Amino acid sequence: MRALWLEDRVLGARRNVPRPTPPPGEGLVRVTLAGVCNTDLELVKGYYPFTGVPGHEFVGEVVAAEATEWVGRRVVGEINARCGVCATCRSGRLTHCPARTVLGIKGRQGAMAEFLILPVGNLHAVPDAMTDEVAVFTEPVAAALQVQERVQIDADARVVVVGDGKLGQLVARTLALAGHRPTVVGRHARKLALLSGLGIATAAAADVPPREADVVVECTGNPDGLTLARSAVRPQGTIVLKSTYHGEVRVNISGVVVDEVTLVGSRCGPFAPALALLAAGTLQVTDMIDQRFALVDGVAAFTAAAAPGVLKVLIAP
Amino acid sequence: MRALWLEDRVLGARRNVPRPTPPPGEGLVRVTLAGVCNTDLELVKGYYPFTGVPGHEFVGEVVAAEATEWVGRRVVGEINARCGVCATCRSGRLTHCPARTVLGIKGRQGAMAEFLILPVGNLHAVPDAMTDEVAVFTEPVAAALQVQERVQIDADARVVVVGDGKLGQLVARTLALAGHRPTVVGRHARKLALLSGLGIATAAAADVPPREADVVVECTGNPDGLTLARSAVRPQGTIVLKSTYHGEVRVNISGVVVDEVTLVGSRCGPFAPALALLAAGTLQVTDMIDQRFALVDGVAAFTAAAAPGVLKVLIAP
Repeated sequence: MRALWLEDRVLGARRNVPRPTPPPGEGLVRVTLAGVCNTDLELVKGYYPFTGVPGHEFVGEVVAAEATEWVGRRVVGEINARCGVCATCRSGRLTHCPARTVLGIKGRQGAMAEFLILPVGNLHAVPDAMTDEVAVFTEPVAAALQVQERVQIDADARVVVVGDGKLGQLVARTLALAGHRPTVVGRHARKLALLSGLGIATAAAADVPPREADVVVECTGNPDGLTLARSAVRPQGTIVLKSTYHGEVRVNISGVVVDEVTLVGSRCGPFAPALALLAAGTLQVTDMIDQRFALVDGVAAFTAAAAPGVLKVLIAP
Repeated sequence: MRALWLEDRVLGARRNVPRPTPPPGEGLVRVTLAGVCNTDLELVKGYYPFTGVPGHEFVGEVVAAEATEWVGRRVVGEINARCGVCATCRSGRLTHCPARTVLGIKGRQGAMAEFLILPVGNLHAVPDAMTDEVAVFTEPVAAALQVQERVQIDADARVVVVGDGKLGQLVARTLALAGHRPTVVGRHARKLALLSGLGIATAAAADVPPREADVVVECTGNPDGLTLARSAVRPQGTIVLKSTYHGEVRVNISGVVVDEVTLVGSRCGPFAPALALLAAGTLQVTDMIDQRFALVDGVAAFTAAAAPGVLKVLIAP
């Protein structure tokens, strides 16, 4: 099958990648649309060791599965495939199974291909009325909703979102839909304008008042973003760490202790609420789609996605 | 008056330090006993800029105050003196007032002297039956109790305390009294034996199972302690940061995000519950007193307190 292939930090489009064969319990999905995430760009930079097909944001159709009721369904899929039997799985922390494989990230070929396989337990049916262009946002919307899973945010909380990129956009939009009034800090006029158009407050970093925010969500993956989050949060406030960072970051832990700040890591989120939110039509996402590429032009898609100012880039096999 | 005096990282005993005069709202306290804390040792190392009388753990007698009902009372005192009118004070985060002075730490002469002054609102009367040797532990016990103020710990939680020093001892002991079953990780046989004698589990660092603890309380102030805490905590678990660190510490933030760990800073705690716990007699503290010095020998007291294996050193003016 055709697929993008990452090996030794070189990404290429290949025509001869073996089509995966689903083992018992897994389904074969024909990918109809995939999204490029910053994690994919970081894989190419070599921040994580991965060889194979990248990509974890997708929508597609099940074309084979032992559980035949899934065949023919349009689906999205949770990206962490767990063992199901270890202590972590039994505790219900399903995305943290130490033996997990992760679609297009760790030990499992990804979505930038004609076909992928995932356990059928990871699949979620997409409502008929939802377009592929909306459904492909399910995974990043779930990740954005995980902020609210991890932290109880008061209705009157002063919330700052650091970063106006893909993740910051979705975090701010989902917070706003939940009744919060986030202020998004960013550097890109066009990205901030999208938020303003949705009634979400924006600011430049220099205009963020120090030590006032109850909750800051760091969505840049840049140490500067963490520095801003730290200066913006109030004593006994909370910083949600939503992005990964390359390498180790120097942190003034004493300041965290003296100001009694809480740092909360947040990763993958719940698919069902994300799909419900997208199905309700209240969460705007398609305005974030900047470009669309064929799979054969996938390398160009990655280049486009890495350009400053670009939001979502999609790849259609 | 006699006092210890810290200036340019040199600690000395002086005879001619001016006796403080309480401004309106403050009381003059004749110190009867003071405790040496690791923060005091760090002040001498120059980790924080401070010139003057160190010391913030004390018990004493009020000898002058406008509020005459306080005169003659034996007291302990909260160390953060707030402005009372700023947004932070009005929000109830009284220990975080940005204009605060802190006894013997920031902008306010401390307890290693014959006399100190504090706002009478900071003072707490010591029950008659409580000895000075017990009452002088009120401040560090309050700091230990702050762990439970900052984090809701389930009854069946697996709790690890990293550090068998003064702070780790009190954190573990207060957790045990609250019904938890902490395991204390330390390097000092004598200190661990004190805990074992109280029925508290102990372990060497090498014997702490990785990724199992629900809550880890880091009490060493050493980057190695933070590394151990990070390896011991389970995914979606909590690390309470109880110690300050010299300088910035390198932290793998990506790991915190991927494992969805929560880091919670914890500093000063509530005096009233600390006094109540000490008054009830269930919290053993005097076994931690290793040496007692006169104020004139205060420099030797600091040297003794800094020696490996030593727990609490007291100074009596």
